[in-house]
Amino acid sequence: MSEIQVNRRLLSENDQAAALLREKFGREGTLVVNLISSPGSGKTTLLEATVAAMSRTYRLAAIEGDIATERDADRLRRHGIPARQIITGGACHLDARLVRNELQKGGLDEADILFIENVGNLVCPTSYDLGEDFKVALLSVAEGDDKPFKYPGIFSRAAAAIITKIDLLPHVDFDVEAVRAQVNTLSPDGHFLLTSARTGEGVDGWCRLLAEKLNAKRKAADRADAPGN
Amino acid sequence: MSEIQVNRRLLSENDQAAALLREKFGREGTLVVNLISSPGSGKTTLLEATVAAMSRTYRLAAIEGDIATERDADRLRRHGIPARQIITGGACHLDARLVRNELQKGGLDEADILFIENVGNLVCPTSYDLGEDFKVALLSVAEGDDKPFKYPGIFSRAAAAIITKIDLLPHVDFDVEAVRAQVNTLSPDGHFLLTSARTGEGVDGWCRLLAEKLNAKRKAADRADAPGN
Repeated sequence: MSEIQVNRRLLSENDQAAALLREKFGREGTLVVNLISSPGSGKTTLLEATVAAMSRTYRLAAIEGDIATERDADRLRRHGIPARQIITGGACHLDARLVRNELQKGGLDEADILFIENVGNLVCPTSYDLGEDFKVALLSVAEGDDKPFKYPGIFSRAAAAIITKIDLLPHVDFDVEAVRAQVNTLSPDGHFLLTSARTGEGVDGWCRLLAEKLNAKRKAADRADAPGN
Repeated sequence: MSEIQVNRRLLSENDQAAALLREKFGREGTLVVNLISSPGSGKTTLLEATVAAMSRTYRLAAIEGDIATERDADRLRRHGIPARQIITGGACHLDARLVRNELQKGGLDEADILFIENVGNLVCPTSYDLGEDFKVALLSVAEGDDKPFKYPGIFSRAAAAIITKIDLLPHVDFDVEAVRAQVNTLSPDGHFLLTSARTGEGVDGWCRLLAEKLNAKRKAADRADAPGN
């Protein structure tokens, strides 16, 4: 079997596992968000701020993907939500079976929102469906304003692009409007959010988006369950 | 063939192509540096500063790896050195055959130093030998001080770790000594450099390291050519 054939088979097996996960998350009414970015764009830090803002109102849980170390799950557990770490060894992305196996260990059920923080990587996680409701691409202003066009795969598939660390804008060359235009080209219907977990700016808008997506998912499920359907 | 078998075969084919490249670079006396980091750590910006500092004394050339866009090679050509862009399509790393094919197109010969800027990724490029003399891992202070232990593969294989964007240190939480300790654990003989391409700080030390490595390579080649060998 060639590399391409093996990749196709793996992706198709992954899609089957992801479909089962999506069904399960649908039954349980859990909104699932797959966060993807370079290392160090601030995924865990944004989640810490999200937990601080939302955990009194919603049941939150997290799965953290990393090549090595339990550090990120530890950080979120310290914020009082259940979190499990998947250590991939060498692999540069999570896949649906890793997520399923982690969920089977228990402790993450009955969440309103499950965050899946992927391995820090703008390329490999892009093709792997994890049964999520939507993908989010994060980009810190320190990474430069050419990145959406350099990594079009993730920015075209993400339902939301979150620009992080905007408190650093005075100290770096980063043209927000140029990035907004790139993201709009790649994902015309996507959300575009500016945040700083350090100052808290924009975190409310992100939390509002999550709450809206959760409500929309539950309303759609209620309609499907209504008599006559 | 399983995924693992395919990967092993690919790596072994890559190693053969890399060995031939290394022989060629040795014959031609070209020092070859493989730069690896996350997207947006400042590889191209460091190379621009390096070209500004060294191109009057040394013949420099670059191969730029990216998923999409010619942008990085354009930036270096504007600085007056020959540069070729390899667009990998979806692949998250360069490999030795891509580099060989690009060199065969001509225009990069007779360089004293050839920089190979890998695709922005801290994981995938790690295992692929490109025939380089050494790998360099870059990490910007905006990415956080936990990264060497989270991405041990590259930081243990790199002969030099370069901390970039140190002009941002007053604005971010980044413990330089903690990072130095992680890098020392992973690569006890490695170089550890602090740089800011924006202010120029530390760029001289990096250029000095390159000059030393080039001289050492040429002296070793002269000794091998000397009568009696």
